Amino acid sequence: MGDKNAADIARLIHDETFDIDTEEFTRLVAHAGDLIVKYFEGIRTGIIIPDKTLEQMKESIIEPLPLTGQNLWQILEEAKKKVIDQAVRIGHPKLLGWILPSGTPIGAVADGIAGALNQNVALSGSGIATAVELLVLNWIKQILGYDQNAAGVLVSGGTLANLTALTVARNSKATYDIRKNGVKQGNERGAMVLYASKEVHSCILKAANLLGLGTDNIRFVDIDDQFRLDVKDLEAKIIEDREQEKHPFCVVATAGTVNTGAIDPLDAIADTCQNYNLWFHVDAAYGGFAALAPSCTPLLKGITRADSLTLDPHKWLFIPFEAGCVFVKNAAQMREAFSVSVPYLHIDKTKIPGQDDVDFADYGIQLSRHFRALKIWMSLKQYGVEKYGRIIEQNIHLAQYLSALLLEREDVEIVAPPALSTVCFRYYPRDLQQRYQRCDRGTQENIERYLDALNQSVLSAMRKEGKMMLSGTVLRNTFVLRACIVNFRTTKQDIVEISEMVQGVGKTEDGTLRRLHI
Amino acid sequence: MGDKNAADIARLIHDETFDIDTEEFTRLVAHAGDLIVKYFEGIRTGIIIPDKTLEQMKESIIEPLPLTGQNLWQILEEAKKKVIDQAVRIGHPKLLGWILPSGTPIGAVADGIAGALNQNVALSGSGIATAVELLVLNWIKQILGYDQNAAGVLVSGGTLANLTALTVARNSKATYDIRKNGVKQGNERGAMVLYASKEVHSCILKAANLLGLGTDNIRFVDIDDQFRLDVKDLEAKIIEDREQEKHPFCVVATAGTVNTGAIDPLDAIADTCQNYNLWFHVDAAYGGFAALAPSCTPLLKGITRADSLTLDPHKWLFIPFEAGCVFVKNAAQMREAFSVSVPYLHIDKTKIPGQDDVDFADYGIQLSRHFRALKIWMSLKQYGVEKYGRIIEQNIHLAQYLSALLLEREDVEIVAPPALSTVCFRYYPRDLQQRYQRCDRGTQENIERYLDALNQSVLSAMRKEGKMMLSGTVLRNTFVLRACIVNFRTTKQDIVEISEMVQGVGKTEDGTLRRLHI
Repeated sequence: MGDKNAADIARLIHDETFDIDTEEFTRLVAHAGDLIVKYFEGIRTGIIIPDKTLEQMKESIIEPLPLTGQNLWQILEEAKKKVIDQAVRIGHPKLLGWILPSGTPIGAVADGIAGALNQNVALSGSGIATAVELLVLNWIKQILGYDQNAAGVLVSGGTLANLTALTVARNSKATYDIRKNGVKQGNERGAMVLYASKEVHSCILKAANLLGLGTDNIRFVDIDDQFRLDVKDLEAKIIEDREQEKHPFCVVATAGTVNTGAIDPLDAIADTCQNYNLWFHVDAAYGGFAALAPSCTPLLKGITRADSLTLDPHKWLFIPFEAGCVFVKNAAQMREAFSVSVPYLHIDKTKIPGQDDVDFADYGIQLSRHFRALKIWMSLKQYGVEKYGRIIEQNIHLAQYLSALLLEREDVEIVAPPALSTVCFRYYPRDLQQRYQRCDRGTQENIERYLDALNQSVLSAMRKEGKMMLSGTVLRNTFVLRACIVNFRTTKQDIVEISEMVQGVGKTEDGTLRRLHI
Repeated sequence: MGDKNAADIARLIHDETFDIDTEEFTRLVAHAGDLIVKYFEGIRTGIIIPDKTLEQMKESIIEPLPLTGQNLWQILEEAKKKVIDQAVRIGHPKLLGWILPSGTPIGAVADGIAGALNQNVALSGSGIATAVELLVLNWIKQILGYDQNAAGVLVSGGTLANLTALTVARNSKATYDIRKNGVKQGNERGAMVLYASKEVHSCILKAANLLGLGTDNIRFVDIDDQFRLDVKDLEAKIIEDREQEKHPFCVVATAGTVNTGAIDPLDAIADTCQNYNLWFHVDAAYGGFAALAPSCTPLLKGITRADSLTLDPHKWLFIPFEAGCVFVKNAAQMREAFSVSVPYLHIDKTKIPGQDDVDFADYGIQLSRHFRALKIWMSLKQYGVEKYGRIIEQNIHLAQYLSALLLEREDVEIVAPPALSTVCFRYYPRDLQQRYQRCDRGTQENIERYLDALNQSVLSAMRKEGKMMLSGTVLRNTFVLRACIVNFRTTKQDIVEISEMVQGVGKTEDGTLRRLHI
């Protein structure tokens, strides 16, 4: 362009825009709103998960890269038929698989508004979005009774929250300057060692991998009969590592394990961390907001002693994905780990309206950040924490109810004591239970193998039918069915029907499979 | 609960729910839709950034943790008055600060729908959302001409995209098993070294820090007169590190630097990487989609040779935050870096409808993932890539137009050659330009210091006025004003008015400040 003057360049510009005519946009928004209302209206009925393979899904939407624009109404129609109608009905009262919570309807409305505002909640000048996030973070600290001076940030979810916290833990506990020197796990002697129970969430492994700690330097601590971290084994492992001149630096405790809902003995772990000068991190992604349920308060004792804390508002605050949250008690350590000074962001802070002392990019990994706080703000205001507490308590009661109903059936075994809102069980035909008591070890092993296969079939059959959805996991080498109730639509009647369906499907699958196996 | 039977527990459950009455929800959604339409309708006018400090913003929304629920209409009213009306008007045609693109209106609609569907695009069974993401990723690969077999994933933005890519680079190029052993940067000899230009984005430092590489092991390569990486200096630095028995492993090239929009010489850097067996990563967060603008195609030559590639659909695809994207050419290496096998997620894959061979958690850091693909899918369909190409080209022409108009003014200096859609300049009163030519070194330094102060004042005054918004940065120790046009609403007339305002504000501030300084 060097040789072109302004007038020459001006002739190339035709003021095209992506804006839509207001009238057409009004109708479009109204129609989309209608789709959203209808979606929620129908969420209690219909198939939970469509019976199609990914290949079939891919084929149903295949389309070359659009060169020219398409009709807006056609696009919305496709969004309805191809996407909405084929989506998993997350929010269905009988979806109890994994931890897939129902989302608040107002959360969806908030995400639409946030999408329109398109704030970037990191940069200088994102005043109101920053203020709302700070307010929401303070509310969450209050819910937990956590230090009001702690620094925090909203993130995409538990994985990023844990990664953020462990970055601060690693950098703060290192005996050298990690930001400058890099990680030195090669030095066998001083290697930094992380402790977590055998039931810890896989994202802790992922974080340790990213942070360059290495799985060799993670100790998987034994669990007790309720799948909680065994503090004696923790201490023994710390002492052993010290003797080997390793550098024990952090314990990850879990408040609500993903498998069974177990809450590690937080207070005792906090004592151990204090005694051995270790960073105390609590992954309370699932169980943290159980602080609102009176029955859980005693179990969470010690959580406020955490140096860092992971929570997932997109779990038991029922916020639509993504809404994770992380706190670090010592704000300076958090800032020290993440603040990177660059001229184009940090100039002239004192003079810019709306930008005083908080830039969330200094407290976490992301720079550009969506306005996640809005949906949390609106949801907490709509319901208030007292009702949240009742709904969470209700989820816990529903899990206990399911467990009790299943116990009353002869063909079901409860495999782990129900904790929080999780029930782990398996379909175990009564005649096989009896046979197991009086047969030899070889036959017992055959029965175990058969039960694994049977319960996998039960799970698949349930999903294929689409009327309810559980997930499966492995506990002490046994495949089990897992119901995790983080759902404000599930009723007593749903639980009764689920327990009946388990029995029904179990019987059918057993009828088909038994002769093939034993 | 151990001693309670099912009937006892049932009595505790009262089937409370968070659901809203359909009729009320219909009205709520309609009202929110109205707010969204009005927001877009008014986006070309009004104050860009409210003249309030963060403290004032915080006070304007202060509220104790809500114990009981509040009236829905009241909440929406507060959302309007406290949040929407106080938000930064991102999308305003004269907002050219940082890289804060206007978002497509349909993107906001899509985020509302995605919030309602609340899919978790990682888990088994998220069939249609996974399929849409795969389709969108394939479209993006086609736009870039990138390897169709590359693996990819949508992420929150450039920082996470770069972090994801550099994790794969680090793990793949290490001479030992990093996942098992951890990072061994302590070993001075074999330390892994990363190369990037002095103009690289700060998130690369953040990533290197997280990954345990250490800033000591980043080499900041010199830049040429157009702020592009100097390949000769790159080679010299690699050779020097090899001689010191370091382990050069990766070059980060930038396609569109954040400061000036410069595109590093990708093809030459690819040659260097090939010669020295280094991982070639391209951070094309800003400039990647310029592939759609014919004038940029030659500048991006070599981008398809990248081992990994960062793109930000929330920049030049105008998708509302957050929408980042990362590709790794060798899919197996990406999976190797991130796949963590856990029973409760990975059982029984073959039998679950909708879940075949793609689980995005295996290709990135997040587990729970929002349905980001929907807004990209709908936006690309609405406009088609030909119009995208014209809008991007228009942004580039607008930048050239601004540069040309400013050049025609006597009191402005263009500090960097305009690249992509970025213009860096400073207000430099003509009399000072003349005086600089004939004064001694001491006075010259005084003038430079004065110009820094003057341009910071110009920036603050512009923002306080709220009619336009630029950002500032530092280039070779000089404070400059920076206009970055990633905006489909900016017109020729806007640019004319901006160039006039620069002159006007500059003159006023110079009038006030000059006597205080020189």
